[in-house]
Amino acid sequence: MITIAEVDDVRSLCDAARADGRSVGLVPTMGAFHAGHCSLMRAARRDCDLVVVSLFVNPTQFGPSEDLQAYPRDAGGDAARAIAEGVDVLFTPSSVAMYPEPMRTTVQVAGLTDRLCGASRPTHFAGVTTVVTKLLSIVGPCRAYFGRKDAQQLAVIRRMVRDLNLPAEIVGCPLVRDASGLAMSSRNAYLTAEERADALVLAWSLFGACEAIGEGERDAVLIRSRLADAIASRPTVRLDYAEVVDGENLDVVDRIEGEVLLAVAAFVGRTRLIDNATVRVDGDHVEAELGVVSVAGRPPTPRGAFAGCP
Amino acid sequence: MITIAEVDDVRSLCDAARADGRSVGLVPTMGAFHAGHCSLMRAARRDCDLVVVSLFVNPTQFGPSEDLQAYPRDAGGDAARAIAEGVDVLFTPSSVAMYPEPMRTTVQVAGLTDRLCGASRPTHFAGVTTVVTKLLSIVGPCRAYFGRKDAQQLAVIRRMVRDLNLPAEIVGCPLVRDASGLAMSSRNAYLTAEERADALVLAWSLFGACEAIGEGERDAVLIRSRLADAIASRPTVRLDYAEVVDGENLDVVDRIEGEVLLAVAAFVGRTRLIDNATVRVDGDHVEAELGVVSVAGRPPTPRGAFAGCP
Repeated sequence: MITIAEVDDVRSLCDAARADGRSVGLVPTMGAFHAGHCSLMRAARRDCDLVVVSLFVNPTQFGPSEDLQAYPRDAGGDAARAIAEGVDVLFTPSSVAMYPEPMRTTVQVAGLTDRLCGASRPTHFAGVTTVVTKLLSIVGPCRAYFGRKDAQQLAVIRRMVRDLNLPAEIVGCPLVRDASGLAMSSRNAYLTAEERADALVLAWSLFGACEAIGEGERDAVLIRSRLADAIASRPTVRLDYAEVVDGENLDVVDRIEGEVLLAVAAFVGRTRLIDNATVRVDGDHVEAELGVVSVAGRPPTPRGAFAGCP
Repeated sequence: MITIAEVDDVRSLCDAARADGRSVGLVPTMGAFHAGHCSLMRAARRDCDLVVVSLFVNPTQFGPSEDLQAYPRDAGGDAARAIAEGVDVLFTPSSVAMYPEPMRTTVQVAGLTDRLCGASRPTHFAGVTTVVTKLLSIVGPCRAYFGRKDAQQLAVIRRMVRDLNLPAEIVGCPLVRDASGLAMSSRNAYLTAEERADALVLAWSLFGACEAIGEGERDAVLIRSRLADAIASRPTVRLDYAEVVDGENLDVVDRIEGEVLLAVAAFVGRTRLIDNATVRVDGDHVEAELGVVSVAGRPPTPRGAFAGCP
């Protein structure tokens, strides 16, 4: 693996690979790698000739009161994990390399970004879509890999790529949970042992809701209350939102039909965590996608295999 | 030359050309070709292996009261001119092909777009930057060609490409004038013979201002008044703006130093026309770029060769 910090250098290397007929895969990350990131690298390794992982804690997607300074950083550990996953290039630009002059240009996706996480993080998604456009332009991948943990981000990026005809396929990869069910997140590093136990209520709320849908419940308003009530049952956890939305355009739905996203966000102590499940309903048939479980040192079990999923 | 209407077809053809190591050049246009468009095609033909000209009257860059419906269209004449210039591909998408679903995504450039034409056409540049991003993504050119007649558009697109790291070189080509000095524009087709004569005041105002700068005037406020007064001298012409701005960031300047853009816009009858000149001042040395003159059937004379230019 080689580590590259300069935009022009990684661009030249990727241009040369494409000129040789090699396919390029991009995994955009903010580092502090966990099993979720590793699963993205593995998917890219499986599909592409040249695997580029970008590691950039993008300041423009953090709000003024958010955790940009505190965001977990582990350069040594990240490099070791990327090497272990067979990554070819770790692209680690500085802020100055990515933003050499004040940015005048933004890429914005209307509608999908004003709800869920966008309601409490109003500038977040414009930061994400703009930096992802930059990374896609620099690396020029035929495929870019994103985790379903950030389900809204994935929907927003898919829409952006379609609207702008960007020449990359966006590959969504399963959310990864630890053995307790907690969704993997770099921000889990902020949690005390007690908070970590409390944080499980997010996953449990989703498991319970999926179970209810599996048993026939189709009223989205009831499912939403059920999610919120489950999270409120833990007094140390403060709900940000619990929503049931269309899986593609993220519009709030009244009935559970077709593909819907159950999405929750909550503060556990001072740490904001998110979690979600995708449910596909066709008549009596229910398919719930709650992610995969990764046990340290072993690859994630296949998608959809989480115990307790209907 | 082949004409292609579908996004996927032109993308495949350009992908194949690049895979063969051929360079691709893009000339984005709205059709109704005149000598200015032809000069862009000729520049692309000189530089690139595969020349793609897009012809799309983009609805999103017209305001609600503007001339989208009336905009000149000449499919047969345009194809003949493109063939004569050695163009390989004429890409003529429909609105449905470019916008198959309601757009949620926009690319916006702040600052540079709120002045000059942006002041009277507030949604224009977001339409331009978004459609140009789409065309660059579809065609994947190494170079894209734009005329300096639309000086603000060129500055905005250069900034967008830099900010988003888009993998294309933006080539600005000289403004082209007819033998009378009138800047070539598809909208000149709207003018009566009398209006056409009146419209010359735009060019004359610029020639006079350049002459004054050549003679030592450095006060941008005076030059601005001089431009406005010259245009106001023709009662049939209604001034929109006359500005003296920095050539790159389009900020208003007080002194004529370095590279400045003299830009004017006015309504001649119901037709809105624009014109500009770029002046580079280094001490006593003045270089004015007023464009090139094209006489029907002959290629434009070399850049900077306009008679009367200091």
